[in-house]
Amino acid sequence: MRLLEERIRTEGKVLEGGVLKVDGFLNHQIDVTLLQELGKEFFRLYHNCTVNKILTIEASGIGIACITAQFFDCPVVFAKKSKSKNISDQVYASQVESFTHCVTNTILVSRDYLSEHDRVLIIDDFLANGAAIKGLLNLCYRAGATVVGCGICVEKAFQPGGERIRQTGVRVESLARVASMSPADGITFVP
Amino acid sequence: MRLLEERIRTEGKVLEGGVLKVDGFLNHQIDVTLLQELGKEFFRLYHNCTVNKILTIEASGIGIACITAQFFDCPVVFAKKSKSKNISDQVYASQVESFTHCVTNTILVSRDYLSEHDRVLIIDDFLANGAAIKGLLNLCYRAGATVVGCGICVEKAFQPGGERIRQTGVRVESLARVASMSPADGITFVP
Repeated sequence: MRLLEERIRTEGKVLEGGVLKVDGFLNHQIDVTLLQELGKEFFRLYHNCTVNKILTIEASGIGIACITAQFFDCPVVFAKKSKSKNISDQVYASQVESFTHCVTNTILVSRDYLSEHDRVLIIDDFLANGAAIKGLLNLCYRAGATVVGCGICVEKAFQPGGERIRQTGVRVESLARVASMSPADGITFVP
Repeated sequence: MRLLEERIRTEGKVLEGGVLKVDGFLNHQIDVTLLQELGKEFFRLYHNCTVNKILTIEASGIGIACITAQFFDCPVVFAKKSKSKNISDQVYASQVESFTHCVTNTILVSRDYLSEHDRVLIIDDFLANGAAIKGLLNLCYRAGATVVGCGICVEKAFQPGGERIRQTGVRVESLARVASMSPADGITFVP
C-alpha cells in the first residue's frame, strides 16, 4: 500500500538492532486518519469473508483494530498480556515472546469472547518473527474459532514470521512489506 | 449518558473487592458502535476547546481514544507502561499505581509527541482513585502542555479520584458516574 510505504519511508527511522521506529504515526502517537485508510484497505481485502470479530493484542494493535472494526461493523477483542482483577479465570492462554520488550508474556482471552461461532480477522501493527500472531492464532484454535486471515500494517519480510505463518495455510495480508532496512541504507519494500 | 448507563446496568457485573466488570463491551471485548456514541458525546462536550491531541494510557484507553479522535480530527498519543526498544530515551515519566493489576508502573511519553503547543484532552475508560489520570496530568504538566479536560467513560463516583482532580481545577466529564455498587444490590448512578 503506497500510502503507508511512503509514510514509513519519510517518517520511519531505522535503529541499530533491527528496530523500525514508526512511533510518530503508528504505535505511540497515532495518526487516526492514516488508520482509517489502513482499515479501509483491510476491509477491501477481507470484506467477503464474513468476519464477525477482530482479534488483536494489547497495546499497539488496539487502535488499528478499533478503526478497522468500524468498516466490518463487528466488535474487537484484544488479548491481554497480564491477568487483572477484572478478567475471569475462564480464559484461553498462549505464550508469546516479545522482541521489543525482551520478555515472554502469557496472553489471555476470556472464553466469553472467543468461540467456535467466530470468524476472526487478526489485526496487528507489526509482523516480524511472528510470535504475537502465532499466539493469537493459538487462542483462536483453542476456542475453535475460524481464522479468516491476518491483517498486518508493517511486515518485516526479511524475518521469517510471515512466511512461516503463510506456510501453515493462514492468509496473511501486509499493507507494507519491508524487504531490507539499515541505518545507513534506509528502507526498501517488497514490490 | 443514558446509553452507557443502560449498558452498564444490563451487562456490567459487580464483583467482590470493588470491581466493576464491563469487559463485554468496553475493555476486553470492545463494542465499537458504542464507542462511536461515546466519542460523539466527548466531542459535544469539548468541541469548542481547540483540542489538538488526545492523550490516553495503554491498554484499554486506546480504543476509545482512537474512535474519539476521529471526531476531533487530531492524533492520539498513548502513554506506555514500560520501556521498549522502539521508544527513545527522551521521555516524560510519571509513577502510576494500578488498582486492577496491583502494581506500580512508570508511564512514559516521548518528548517528541507532547509539548507546550498541545491542547490535550485526556481520555480513559475508568476513573476511580484517579492514579492513571493524575499520571497523565503530570506528563502534560512536565511537557508544558495545556490540559483542556478529561473525558472518562465510567467514573466510580464513590471513590475520591474524580473529586480530587476537579478540586485542582481540571475539568472532568464522565459519561457514567457510578454512585454505588455491590454484588447484592447492583449498580446505581449519580443522577
